[in-house]
Amino acid sequence: MYRSEIKVVDCTIRDGGLVNDSKFAPETVREVYRAICESGVDYVELGYRNSKEMFSPAEFGPWRFCEEKHLRKAMDGIDPRGTKLAVMQDAHKAVPEDVLPKEDSVVDMIRVATYVKDVDKAIRLANNATDKGYEATINIMAISHEGGIFLDESLQQIEEETSVNAVYVVDSFGALYSEEIHFLVEKFQMYLKTKEVGVHCHNSQQLAFANTIEGIIKNANYVDGTLYGLGRGAGNCPLELLLAFLKNPKFNLVPILKAIGQTIMPLRKELAWGYHIPYMLAGVLNQHPGEAIKWMDIPESRRDDYVKFYSQITEDTEE
Amino acid sequence: MYRSEIKVVDCTIRDGGLVNDSKFAPETVREVYRAICESGVDYVELGYRNSKEMFSPAEFGPWRFCEEKHLRKAMDGIDPRGTKLAVMQDAHKAVPEDVLPKEDSVVDMIRVATYVKDVDKAIRLANNATDKGYEATINIMAISHEGGIFLDESLQQIEEETSVNAVYVVDSFGALYSEEIHFLVEKFQMYLKTKEVGVHCHNSQQLAFANTIEGIIKNANYVDGTLYGLGRGAGNCPLELLLAFLKNPKFNLVPILKAIGQTIMPLRKELAWGYHIPYMLAGVLNQHPGEAIKWMDIPESRRDDYVKFYSQITEDTEE
Repeated sequence: MYRSEIKVVDCTIRDGGLVNDSKFAPETVREVYRAICESGVDYVELGYRNSKEMFSPAEFGPWRFCEEKHLRKAMDGIDPRGTKLAVMQDAHKAVPEDVLPKEDSVVDMIRVATYVKDVDKAIRLANNATDKGYEATINIMAISHEGGIFLDESLQQIEEETSVNAVYVVDSFGALYSEEIHFLVEKFQMYLKTKEVGVHCHNSQQLAFANTIEGIIKNANYVDGTLYGLGRGAGNCPLELLLAFLKNPKFNLVPILKAIGQTIMPLRKELAWGYHIPYMLAGVLNQHPGEAIKWMDIPESRRDDYVKFYSQITEDTEE
Repeated sequence: MYRSEIKVVDCTIRDGGLVNDSKFAPETVREVYRAICESGVDYVELGYRNSKEMFSPAEFGPWRFCEEKHLRKAMDGIDPRGTKLAVMQDAHKAVPEDVLPKEDSVVDMIRVATYVKDVDKAIRLANNATDKGYEATINIMAISHEGGIFLDESLQQIEEETSVNAVYVVDSFGALYSEEIHFLVEKFQMYLKTKEVGVHCHNSQQLAFANTIEGIIKNANYVDGTLYGLGRGAGNCPLELLLAFLKNPKFNLVPILKAIGQTIMPLRKELAWGYHIPYMLAGVLNQHPGEAIKWMDIPESRRDDYVKFYSQITEDTEE
């Protein structure tokens, strides 16, 4: 019933870091790492390996940079049981020099996030990673804004110029419906003859898990989730739903349930994520959730005036 | 882009009545009715027309019985603009005599909810409704527990013995994945040559909206939603998402957004619905959400011990 080729990536700390500027307490990161290793998930992504020139360490927490010493401390004494460690580099906000030779690093995989316009930067970072001995992926963000020929060119270029494991369809705005996921996964496969396709979905329209399933049905083999969907705006595909769907006997849901109850639920006192009308409207309109996130910060008495918010974000996009 | 045959049914007050024993304030019902009429949605279901012999009026609110006088008061002075009024009868908890001749009633459609085992009762109630001049549907609940031959027999019988508009696939436990929705909608269509197929989905696994889309892709033409997904446990398919997806120009999202902000969000102080791990686990295990609903009532300090809850509900189902 399960497909053994499917690789699951937990990106709770990495994607969740967009909610709190990557300022997770060390103990939180350890407990997430422990749970993911115990659950049998293939990869755990503990943050970004971005440049301190582009993100101020005074403003952003350690998981925006993932220095080796912080990673080692988070993992110390925990048996990885086969779970590999990933970090993400933003194509336009990271530099090759921050990646050590593989033998000096605890990292196994480097995922390069990019817009289509930055794909040459992404290819440079991905090749830097694979040349140094890492696994790598390229994750094409904001894919719902890419209707043109440059996406096709990028895919062809990635196929020819890199040796990444996988290339991801990233629905940053949670705007896609199942038929669009089918279309994009098939388009990616058409160009990426020697690489796997991945899907990373956001939950603005409550479709992150469903669209991940639709990717799987179309043979995408790299899939992302986060504990309880933690992530910016409406959040991500909930890892607990994904594991239950996949039915691979190597997965164990119990450590995941424990970590959600003990480590993730307490975060809800400070961090807001999940389905809300402003995020839903941003998703429906295929917009970045930034305006919705700002709206959710206004006092509760005015926050539920969704008609006003709708009018505001539709006016902004009129030409 | 849109399919004009699709009929949307709002069942906020009816399905939401399972959260609060149908005790909505009259003003709440009026505002929901007003918003649905203004939005252009095809049907609004304001409750059950169940028997007072089987539900005590001391325990249950007026929307469990939907007497004509209560319905008329809720609608008084509001222009329906083409929106039709529905009520639901439970096959095993309602009687034909409670349905007046159509000319004495404000109701347009009677939806009969049934388990496969009660389908003969459902057919009797559906025929009572159509004989008296109403439109009718039969909604087959707990469909994820029906793998046997009696479902096929029931569908054949409904096709031959009734003139209902539509027969619904009801995923009461939010247990189904997209491929199962496809399978069931196609099975229903195989028997129901002269009737439409409907889908009514629950959100235990965050799949209610996605599965409704999958039903639509397979040509189900009756689809249900509720404002902000209000409903038992994890709730229903959110109507706002459904309307935005359908793109029929006759729909207007603005009254829906207004009603969610002004009428539905305040209910969240008293009523709990939406995605939670206990509901998710019930969905994954294809169980009635009853145990999860009980669990969500225990003090918060113990509620997040999901490992304990998981152990409890998996033990209960062992043989």
